[in-house]
Order: sequence, then C-alpha cells, then structure tokens
Amino acid sequence: MADHKVSFAREDAEAPFTVDVPTGTLLADAARQAGVEIGQPCGGQGRCGRCAVQVKQGTIRRRSTLRLSAEDVEQGYALACQSIVEGDVAVYVPPQEKIERRLTTDRTAAEVTVPVGYDYASSQTIRRIHLSLTPPSMDDQTDDWSRLQIALRLQAKVSRSQASLQVLQKIGAILRQGEWQVTAILETNPQVPEDPDRLVDLLPGHVDESTPLWGIAVDIGTTTVTLWLVDLISGRVRAQVAEYNGQIARGEDVISRIIFASKNGGGQEMRQRVLDSINSLLELACKRVKANPQEVVKATVAGNSTMIHLLLGLPAASIRLSPFITAVNHPPLMAAREVGLNINPEGSVDCLPGVASYVGADITAGVLSSGLDQAEQIMLFLDVGTNGETVLGNRDWLVTCACSAGPAFEGAGVVNGMRATTGAIEEVWINSDTFEPTFRVIGGSKPKGICGSGLISLLAEMFLTGLLDKAGNVNLSSKTDRVREGEHGPEYVVVWGKDTENGQDIVISHVDVDNLLRAKAAIYAGFTVLADQVGVALEDATKVLIGGSFGKYINVEKAIQIGLLPDMPWDRFEFLGNTAVRGAYRALLDWQTRDRIKQIAERMTYIELSADNTFYEAFMSAMFLPHTDANKFPSVEAFFSKA
Amino acid sequence: MADHKVSFAREDAEAPFTVDVPTGTLLADAARQAGVEIGQPCGGQGRCGRCAVQVKQGTIRRRSTLRLSAEDVEQGYALACQSIVEGDVAVYVPPQEKIERRLTTDRTAAEVTVPVGYDYASSQTIRRIHLSLTPPSMDDQTDDWSRLQIALRLQAKVSRSQASLQVLQKIGAILRQGEWQVTAILETNPQVPEDPDRLVDLLPGHVDESTPLWGIAVDIGTTTVTLWLVDLISGRVRAQVAEYNGQIARGEDVISRIIFASKNGGGQEMRQRVLDSINSLLELACKRVKANPQEVVKATVAGNSTMIHLLLGLPAASIRLSPFITAVNHPPLMAAREVGLNINPEGSVDCLPGVASYVGADITAGVLSSGLDQAEQIMLFLDVGTNGETVLGNRDWLVTCACSAGPAFEGAGVVNGMRATTGAIEEVWINSDTFEPTFRVIGGSKPKGICGSGLISLLAEMFLTGLLDKAGNVNLSSKTDRVREGEHGPEYVVVWGKDTENGQDIVISHVDVDNLLRAKAAIYAGFTVLADQVGVALEDATKVLIGGSFGKYINVEKAIQIGLLPDMPWDRFEFLGNTAVRGAYRALLDWQTRDRIKQIAERMTYIELSADNTFYEAFMSAMFLPHTDANKFPSVEAFFSKA
Repeated sequence: MADHKVSFAREDAEAPFTVDVPTGTLLADAARQAGVEIGQPCGGQGRCGRCAVQVKQGTIRRRSTLRLSAEDVEQGYALACQSIVEGDVAVYVPPQEKIERRLTTDRTAAEVTVPVGYDYASSQTIRRIHLSLTPPSMDDQTDDWSRLQIALRLQAKVSRSQASLQVLQKIGAILRQGEWQVTAILETNPQVPEDPDRLVDLLPGHVDESTPLWGIAVDIGTTTVTLWLVDLISGRVRAQVAEYNGQIARGEDVISRIIFASKNGGGQEMRQRVLDSINSLLELACKRVKANPQEVVKATVAGNSTMIHLLLGLPAASIRLSPFITAVNHPPLMAAREVGLNINPEGSVDCLPGVASYVGADITAGVLSSGLDQAEQIMLFLDVGTNGETVLGNRDWLVTCACSAGPAFEGAGVVNGMRATTGAIEEVWINSDTFEPTFRVIGGSKPKGICGSGLISLLAEMFLTGLLDKAGNVNLSSKTDRVREGEHGPEYVVVWGKDTENGQDIVISHVDVDNLLRAKAAIYAGFTVLADQVGVALEDATKVLIGGSFGKYINVEKAIQIGLLPDMPWDRFEFLGNTAVRGAYRALLDWQTRDRIKQIAERMTYIELSADNTFYEAFMSAMFLPHTDANKFPSVEAFFSKA
Repeated sequence: MADHKVSFAREDAEAPFTVDVPTGTLLADAARQAGVEIGQPCGGQGRCGRCAVQVKQGTIRRRSTLRLSAEDVEQGYALACQSIVEGDVAVYVPPQEKIERRLTTDRTAAEVTVPVGYDYASSQTIRRIHLSLTPPSMDDQTDDWSRLQIALRLQAKVSRSQASLQVLQKIGAILRQGEWQVTAILETNPQVPEDPDRLVDLLPGHVDESTPLWGIAVDIGTTTVTLWLVDLISGRVRAQVAEYNGQIARGEDVISRIIFASKNGGGQEMRQRVLDSINSLLELACKRVKANPQEVVKATVAGNSTMIHLLLGLPAASIRLSPFITAVNHPPLMAAREVGLNINPEGSVDCLPGVASYVGADITAGVLSSGLDQAEQIMLFLDVGTNGETVLGNRDWLVTCACSAGPAFEGAGVVNGMRATTGAIEEVWINSDTFEPTFRVIGGSKPKGICGSGLISLLAEMFLTGLLDKAGNVNLSSKTDRVREGEHGPEYVVVWGKDTENGQDIVISHVDVDNLLRAKAAIYAGFTVLADQVGVALEDATKVLIGGSFGKYINVEKAIQIGLLPDMPWDRFEFLGNTAVRGAYRALLDWQTRDRIKQIAERMTYIELSADNTFYEAFMSAMFLPHTDANKFPSVEAFFSKA
C-alpha cells in the first residue's frame, strides 16, 4: 500500500509534526506515531467527540461523525479515532484539555494514625536483620550463598531461604563490601511457616535501627492514583501524594479503557500509562523524605478489577462481556521487577483481592477500613463513582453489587460537566423566587463547568424550586429568562457567558438531567436489590459508610433530596474518604489485616444485577425525583408539605 | 577527550571497518565496537599473542609486547588487547584461527540407553495433565485462574498451585481457545510435597498422549558445549549436538575467562556468548526432530563452577583468588526467562550443584554417571582437562581435589599444540632406530599441529626411544637431523615443513616438554595426595574411571609410560566419555537421581591442594618420566629392562 504524508499542526509548535503512514491508518494512530498527543476519553469509540481535529488539506474517510454537527464537518472537523487516512493530509490539532491537579490529598495528610498496637516484629512480613558472618578462608571455602544461608539459620532462625538470580548475582560483592557484616531484608509468609523466606535485599554493614524500612500503599482509582509512603517499622505514613491516572487520556471510564486495551498494543500502552503514574508519584513521595525509590521493599495495591488487570497486563476484555469474568481475582505476590514498579526490583508487590469484575480490591480494602465486616449491626458501604459499588452486611454476612452508574457524576455525559478541578462549580443554591443561582467555584476563578457535587446540588435545588418536576422535566413556564428552549431541548442557564471562563453559557439541559437521573437511579436501585436479597429494609442499616474521594464532597441533604442516598437521619452517614488506600495501608502493615481482606473477598456474595429481574424494576422506580414511592423519602415529602 | 578514527582492514572485506573512539581506548575494544572479531584466547591478558594486528598507519601505545619479537614490533605488529589508541590509526587484522568442529557427538549418538525402569509418572518433576473445565456463566462468575486452580485440585489433586505473571496473562485466552479443554504442564517438588506446584504452561485442547514432552540435558564444557534433547515421557534421547563454547574467543581456560569476565562488561559478554552457544544448539537439536524450542519445558545443566557462574551472570572473580570462593554452589531452580535460555520462558532450569571453585557440577554429575558413589570397592574417577579433577572413594566416602594442570594437553602452552580438530596429529609412533615418526592426523589432511592425545603419544615415544631422558631433556646426541638446537632450545622435528599445512616445521621443544611434564605431574600428584589423605594406596583403586571427552582419546599405555596415569593393569581403566552430560541427562529424568547428585556434592570432602604441603612434594617427584620413584611404574621399568 502507498504511504501518505500526514502532518499535524499545533498552536504551541512552530513546525508541524509529520509521519508517513499507509492507506487505511487511523488518524489517531498516525498522531501517536508522529508523537502528537490527542486525548481519547472514550477510549477511541467515537462517543465523546474530544478527539476532534480539523483537516485543513487532503483526504480522509470518516467512519463516524457522531458528536460532530453538520457545520463542524463542513469546516473539516473529524474525529481522530474514527477517521482513516486515504492520501496526504494536513491536520490542525486544537489545544487539548489540560488535566489540573486538585490536591485532595494534602488536605487529608494529617488524618492518618498508625493502627493501635501496631507491632512491626509480629505484624510485618518484611524483616530487617543484622548478620555477622565468619569470613571464608582456606579452611572454610563455603560458597557465599551457603555461608549467608547458614548465618540466616543460626542468627535469624530462618530454616529455608531463597533468592532470585538477581540477588544471588550481587551477594558476593555486598558480603565483601560490608566485610562480612551485612543487613538482610527478608520476606516471610507467616501463614505458611514451611515456605522459605525470600531474601529481598542485602545491604553492606549493619543499617542503623532508626533508618526507616519503606513500603508503599497504592490505590489505583479510575480517575486518581493515590500513594502513601510508609515506614514499616514505626508504621507511620511519611508522605501522601496523588495524581490523575495517566490512562484518562485513553478513556474516562473502565469500559472505554478495556476497549482501548483490547486493541492491538493498547494493553501495553494502558499498562505503561498507569505504571508511569505510580512511578512518578513514588519518586515525588520519596523526594519529600529524601528516600531512594530502590529502598522501598513492599507495595500493597488496591484498585478496581479493571485497574488491577491493566496494571498487571492481564487481558481485561472478558470483564466487559457477558458473563463478565476476570482473569484473576486473587493475584499472587509478585516481584516489583515483574510488575514494572520502580521500587526495589525484588520488592514484593501485593495486589489485594477482588470479588468480581465490578467489585474489586478497592471495595474489599474499603470494607476493611470501614469496619463493616466486623460490625455487629447491619451497615451499608458504598463507593459512589463511575460504578456504584455497594456492600450491605455485618460480621455475619456480606452482600455486594455494582451498578454501572456511568460517569455522569464525574462530569461525562453532561454537556457542561467536568471533573472536580479548578473552575468547576461544586455547590449551587437557587433562589426560589427569582430562580437566580449562587454558586461556589473550585479555585475561586471564573467557572468552566460543573463537577459531580455541583450537579447533585444543582439538581436538588432545581427540584426544590420547581424548575424541575418529579420526572426531571424542565419547567418552561418558570418565570425567569434562565429557562429556555436550547439545542438539546429545554435547559436552565447556570452561568451567563459573560461570567464564564470561555464566554459561553454554562447550562444544564433536559438530556443532562436525564443522564443524571439514570446514574442516581442505578445506584439507588442497587441498594434496593441488596436489601431485598437478604430480606431486610434499607432503613435497618444503622450506618451508611461512604468511601471514595468523590463521596467526601457530597452534600447529604441534597443527595437525599434527589434520591441518590436513602432518606435517613444525617448522623447515620459517615464519609470515610479514600477507604481503598487506607485499607491498602493497613494491609501493608499487618499480615493478619491482609488476611482479613482475603476473607472479606471470599465472604462477599456478589449479586450480578444484569442477571437480576428485580433490578430493572427498582431502577425504573428510582428514575423520579426523589422516587416514585414518596414514602421512601419522608424528609422530602415533609419539605414540600411545609412549603 | 578527542575522538580518533580507527580503521580495521581485513582480507575478506572490501572496505575497512571504521569506528570513532576517544584517546586511551584499547584497540581490542575499538575492534569490537567496529564489529571486527579478534580472538583473545588468553582473555585479553597479553599472554597468548593471538590478537596480534599490524598497525599500518598512526599512533598507538603498546602496554606490553610480550609474545612479539623485535622484528614483529618493527613491522608494526601490536597486541590488540595491550595497545591503546592515541590518534587516528589504520590497522590490518590477519585472518583469525577458525574453529572447526570435531563431530565427537555423532560417533556416540547411538550409545545412550534409557535408564532401566524409568517411569515418567513417578520419576519426573514435570507432569502433563488434561483438564476439562466448566465454562463460566452468569451463575458461576469464578475468575479464570481460580477456575483453573479448582480443576487442578479436583482433577489432578494439586492442592496448591502457582503461576508467574506471564502465565497468568495468557491463561484466559488459552482457556477460551481450547473451549475450556486444556492441557496443563506442571512442575512439582516431590521432595517437599507441601510446596505449591508451578504451572509452567497451559495449552489449548487435550494434547495427544504420544506427543513428546521435551527436556534438555546440557554440559557446558570450557571447550565444548553438549546438548541432548530428551523426551521426558519415554526418557529417550532424541537428538545430540555439540559445539565449541563461544567463550573460547575470549579465553581458552577458565582463568582467562574469569579475568575477561571481571572487566567492565566482560561478564555480560561471557554470559551472552555461552547463551548463544546453547541457544543455537537448542535450535539445531529441535530442528532435527521438528520440535519448537518453546516446547522444551525443563533444562538440567552441568558444567564446572566457572561455567555455571558465567552462565548465570554470577561474579566469578573470587573463584580465582585465594581463598577461592564460589558465589553459589547449589543454584536454585530458575525460570528459563531469568537465565536467558530460549526454551519455554517458564521452563525450569536446574543447574546441578558443585563442591568448590574447581570441583563443579561436571564432576558431581560425572561421579553419578560413573557409579563411584555407590561402588563397594575403592575407585578413582578423573576428568582430564585443563583442571585435572580427581575423586577417590566408594559408597562410604568420597575425597576430591583439582590440580591446575593448565591447558597444555589442550594444545595451549605448546608451540605447535592445537585443539583436537582437523589437521591435528592425534597419535605418533617413532622408530627406535631411525627416529623417524609415523603419525595419524584428524581428518586425514596435511598436519597443522599436535593435539593432546598426540602430545601424550609423542612424549611417550620420545621417552621410550631415548629422544628424551627421565628429566625431559631432549637428547641432542641422538643420531637424527630431526633433533636440533631451535629458537626455544633443543627440539625434535615431528613433521618437516614440506609436509605441513602451512609449510613450517612442526616441532616439540624442550620448553614444550617441560610444560607437558608440569601438567602430567600436577594430575598425578593429585592422585597421590588424595590416596595419602585417606591412607590408601593408589593401587587399591579397583577401577580408574575416566570422564571428559578428551579422556576418550587417551592411549592408556602411553599415558602410563609418561606417568600421567597410575601404572595398573589396563583393564582397570574405563573411558566413560562425557560423564557430565550423561549425569545431567539422568538428573533431568529422575528427581531421585537429581537428589543423589546433591548428596554427592555434600558428601565429597574437598582437599585444597594449594593449602596442602604434601602436594608440592608429590608434584616435584612426578616431574620426571615416568616418576622419580621407578617402583611406582613397574611396567615402564620392565620395558627398559627388556629393551
């Protein structure tokens, strides 16, 4: 096939980037080859429209123009993920959406306390031991490795020990460098004492007892990766860092990512992107405490099943397709070298166990840190996000489900939706007489869009002020010019263009409301099905434990008003923040806690909602504000009867 | 530092090879960078003179001109390993010595019989098992790995199983490709049944029972690498191949190789060279039986301690320096991926255990295949080579030592010495009246030099005909023009230049004889010390078992006549050929045999000769033909009294 020259012009680059590709190449692939970054939040499915570029010259074939208006197409706009090169082409790439950091972590850095009674010697799987060896001589020509093993046996009571080839290659030099005084870092399996101890590292001389022994706890969120750097001896968290998951550029939600990863080379790219995110966080955290990443000898990782699969390069395609099967729910312990983490290459990587395709290690770790699995009374644990994972239970039983709420609350599927970064409206109040809004913007600058908590707030206010009816229809007869018929049907103008960052009105349309209703209905229907399954009432839950960093910003009152959360006294709700990283941290410290997570994973009964007839019914009933059954929301009833 | 252009001209290349290097670069390193092969049999120590090149133009600095005559230097000759680039240089590289194959293996290919009573099911650590899994469904969403582990538990009684990340990454696709009918290849540790079984590979569908399950037995000799391809089910050897160890170009003996490996990057090069040798043999063997190297799932490797260290990238420097310490005598089982063998990356690589720096796995495997460790009566096992390793013992005790005989019997340190390849004189007879020699040449062509067995033969004939006296002096008064005063002292002309390949006389000089005497004296002194140590007489040995491929070509009578072998009835000598690969083969088949090798390694008492005062004494006594103590060689005495 003939090769065509494709050039990509960018405002921030003087000369265009060019590449030669054969006929039939996807424009997105050509861009990647040319080294030009084009975001594909939907994973290259042509759904999101964010990869639109303008073809200035030459021939391309559009597979799909979904998300492009006729006018866009006339102006040469094309979706990079849906357009095929058929000749020489000159393309203009508009500025890409920048991902800015919201330093959620720094706000919570002080909160972590070491678990009560943490005792390194009895809880930790990693040990650091000083050894004094007799130097070899003509009368004692024992080989280096046997000499070390004998010292381990006599001085550390390690009856069997093993080491990787990489460690064996270096012990000779270290023994001599330390003049036969060394510090061994060993990993034990306290659950199977017969298993050999693993020599993770050997250091010359006797390391000072006060030197930290580093480990990391990691939560790989679909949106955010969080890493805590921990001194395994004191148990103290010494640095907390967080950053967007680098996979976002190739898909906003897990489904888009699986689709992207299932393409040729996509899995490898996804794996590298999340490794890059973790490794740069590792470097950042280590820099803060002047540690070397190579000194980190253990990593405990939480994350949903897709995130863990993509991290480990496990095929994720069957997670997405019925009957929704993961490759591995309980990954074995692995060396960092195999995984690709830049800690000590022999450092142990422990990916926590998940339950099913959509109830992963973030939830098992979350249940642990919420204490639900040891509760005497019934409680509800939920992680509000793209997938609303919910667990209902107590110390005797645990049932769980996941509903694909979709990314509406993370800003996708809503025209002016955005992630919770600078410029996002995070809280809205509407005057019930004038219908004029007041709002709070993250960062305090001009607003750019509305994030999840802002959308909940907005929905609740519109409902309570009558701008929306029970079915979510925008009331066009409202006495305000902010309500109007827009391109996507009736809409409410939250901010006029003169007050926004880009000069365009920020609106919420009927279509947006509908997407948000679907999301909240899916989550609420999940609660209903779980409670039904075990024959308890939702009100029997003595606590509602909310995990996930999104959860932290929800206004309970408003979430109840739209029917996202069940109507209960507010003091039953507890916002726990990132329960996944907290669970990973506790598992990192204590092998018995780690075992408890395994038991949680095994104990949980997973209800597959797509196979459950009652779910659809519950979902349809929840597609109203707050619900078709008003009795379920007495506080909202009371509001209207008062009004 | 300024860069200089260095060009290397070769007769077989039209244009010279060029490279830019900074001041101070070794000519040998510049050649390597330019992609020009220059052999360094002594490992780059400037000892052997084989890396001599001619500087046609430009400036170099000679660190050493050892091995070059004043005339050579005048003509611009310089040792590539000892010369430093100090300006632009044009160099001529003479044709390099070609390494030709002596197909020793093909001669013995028919000899190997499967050990009596070999039973794959009870002896093998590798098992191949058919599994039939229930496909997943909405009612059974068990993850792929758990589903496989359950099948292993129920259908193969494997209570614990483990798999590497690489295997976990592929099981999902294979389970589906085989429509949930698969064949698992498992590795068990029969000695520790509690240890988990390791999933080496998973194949779609049920593999036909008659399909071979491949393993390889490898012996890494300092000179030759031997590989046997074995069907683990029938136990049959299906292909035998051998080739020179690619490390030869960087050192003829282990000491030279350690020196080379200890240089910057040298260890990595040595490792790659031997891996290349093994991997090309693997490919060759697999081609013969139309197998794919990826189907080979187990490798058992023998070799001396240096060879095993270099294969595994273990530092070998301390092997060479007092007190002569190996890094690892008992290497753990490793995955082929880690080692770098091109068999199935998860295939198990078992490097057999050694005893000490100079008594390695070739000897423990050799003792096993000789049966010495189970003998009722005392026997002597020896491997004649660069290092004369000797083991004396029976089923109750085993003592061993190694004497650095040096490479004289392999053709090095002898002016016209050469390896046993085409053109080597391998047997000599001298007429006691005319002193005219008759000889046999390998390959039948014109002679190029003399190999080890030829040298033993020549020495014995010269001694018996009076050309040499007891002290090894050439008798200049012998009535033949073949004896003359040469450049290196008195010498005997074995072949006149008109009859040789290169037109030069093939001679043996006084210096050569002295080197050979040192070699044979070292080996014989080893026997003496071992026997003394345990208080037995050498004659108490009921058998002398000779391993190593060199051993096969020794003429016992002549070896006794020069005092290399003890004077015993000829029927006590048994030539066993490559006992190391045979031992590796038996260990590959049977875990109990493998365990016996471990026991042999542990049972052997190693006598360090350099720490033994009696050795020097014994060595000096053996520096005569056949020995200072004529009583030790009654058959030689008898010859002279008859004569």
